[in-house]
Amino acid sequence: MVTEGPKKPYVIGLDLGGTNSVFGIVDSRGEIKATTAIKTQGYSDVKDYVKASVDALEVIIEEVGGIETIQAMGIGAPNGNYYQGTIEFAPNLEWGHNTVVPLAKLFSEALGVPVALTNDANAAAIGEMIYGVARGMKNFIVITLGTGVGSGIVINGQVVYGCDGFAGELGHTIIRRENGRLCGCGRHGCLEAYCSATGVARTARELLQTRKDRSLLREYNPEDITSLEVSIAAGKGDALAKEIYEFTGSLLGEACADFAAFASPEAFIFFGGLTKAGDLIMDPIKRSYDEHVLPIFRGKAKFLVSGLNGASAAVLGASAVGWEI
Amino acid sequence: MVTEGPKKPYVIGLDLGGTNSVFGIVDSRGEIKATTAIKTQGYSDVKDYVKASVDALEVIIEEVGGIETIQAMGIGAPNGNYYQGTIEFAPNLEWGHNTVVPLAKLFSEALGVPVALTNDANAAAIGEMIYGVARGMKNFIVITLGTGVGSGIVINGQVVYGCDGFAGELGHTIIRRENGRLCGCGRHGCLEAYCSATGVARTARELLQTRKDRSLLREYNPEDITSLEVSIAAGKGDALAKEIYEFTGSLLGEACADFAAFASPEAFIFFGGLTKAGDLIMDPIKRSYDEHVLPIFRGKAKFLVSGLNGASAAVLGASAVGWEI
Repeated sequence: MVTEGPKKPYVIGLDLGGTNSVFGIVDSRGEIKATTAIKTQGYSDVKDYVKASVDALEVIIEEVGGIETIQAMGIGAPNGNYYQGTIEFAPNLEWGHNTVVPLAKLFSEALGVPVALTNDANAAAIGEMIYGVARGMKNFIVITLGTGVGSGIVINGQVVYGCDGFAGELGHTIIRRENGRLCGCGRHGCLEAYCSATGVARTARELLQTRKDRSLLREYNPEDITSLEVSIAAGKGDALAKEIYEFTGSLLGEACADFAAFASPEAFIFFGGLTKAGDLIMDPIKRSYDEHVLPIFRGKAKFLVSGLNGASAAVLGASAVGWEI
Repeated sequence: MVTEGPKKPYVIGLDLGGTNSVFGIVDSRGEIKATTAIKTQGYSDVKDYVKASVDALEVIIEEVGGIETIQAMGIGAPNGNYYQGTIEFAPNLEWGHNTVVPLAKLFSEALGVPVALTNDANAAAIGEMIYGVARGMKNFIVITLGTGVGSGIVINGQVVYGCDGFAGELGHTIIRRENGRLCGCGRHGCLEAYCSATGVARTARELLQTRKDRSLLREYNPEDITSLEVSIAAGKGDALAKEIYEFTGSLLGEACADFAAFASPEAFIFFGGLTKAGDLIMDPIKRSYDEHVLPIFRGKAKFLVSGLNGASAAVLGASAVGWEI
């Protein structure tokens, strides 16, 4: 899409999550000038969702000087298809499961500005490239460690969308082919089944069951353990909790070794809740990578934690998609 | 590199193999107008190799109308680095092992035309894009099944070289993490250890040892079996030989399922000796892919055999690199 005339000063970013939809108006340096939010759920028709969004947006658009100051809007959303501007069969969206929602078009018609949409991990990758630790890089991979494991891949300075807009599902590459854990996708052994927040909690329950060591994690009902409890226990120096991170990082390093053979990126950038564990997770990733990667790639890739961490990261990532239009 | 003026009618292609160096002068439609060849070995200094090459080339350059008709030269070579125009530590080259050879520069100085160099699999990918079954495709992966397993990856219409020029080593992604076969790279479980010609021969020897079925392959001394004997036996309907292709194809399909999660290509294109087995290898690849791939990718990618098969394929692929300068 060609835009005429000089760039306007702001883009709107929408971080569309299963629970909340957070909007930000962002300038070209990544400063968030105004924010607002609505609940994502509670609308059976997407048109009502868009109307509620625009009502909320109008207030903050006025704050920054009106719609004339808005260059474009970028949306990061689960199951987002960049080519089509659609959200496709998103299981967690009341108005988006079992259907294809042309969300970019709906927002563009309502606001009168160009709108681009992509999935959350690709938005994070573009955010890193424009505002974050990947500034100046042409080849890097962002791996998001949240409820699931997502990825945004940049090659030759461009996000990899593939033939259908759905490339970059590295959470669903197979890391354990024999007796692999069942994944939410219905297959076995996916990286996501081990290295997501839920994967980490599962590792905790498995270790607590098969082992006899003392651990702070034994104070909880196994079913109540989430990655948060593991993180707290590890922070207190609990050996078993540290071992859980060791195992998780080790698998991520193995996986990255294969990704290097594909794309030989300049950096792997980790994003999301699990990265808060810092060296507890990053050290085993690097160690395992060096151990598993093809010798010609050894020591070349950087391992970084997102420069966009914090509450506004996802909004910044989404807004960055708007600058790419 | 910017070239001035209209394109000249021909490029030189060099398929640089461990044994022979085959040169072709190729027009823009992929027609080979003249060819020549020299032995790759027998030169301890690369300068002598280049001199012998240029001596041989001068004859065919005159045939097509002199050096003024030559736009550029493209080289496909083992361990070729596109960014640097170098061959780096190529174990099978007398003048190129344990060193970095600036071969593109040497040929460019000797001939007075721009020269680009890449590895054999990337040359095959560019060849498919310009002359072969990938014409018009922007996202595809070429997998070469020869002595090793190589790959050339095209994303958004560009070959993936990565940060160092060595991306696209899919033969060295891990397909068997537990008790994986030792690979030539020193690691275990690489795709190449199973799906190269030598991998196929090894599968044959393993099956003959662990199984008691009758097979035409039992007529050979196990050490003498190569992929050629397997191919001949399968062609005669030998069940064990067919099972070897079934196993090989099945692993390739599993691997492609992971590659789809990375790049969601429009097509996987297979190139090299093993593809001569036709459906014996292609059917299990497709079956295994459909069984293993993430549901959103199922049925999307095409599985094709190279359109450049035949003795001239590698020269055409190399020449295509010349048009890309």
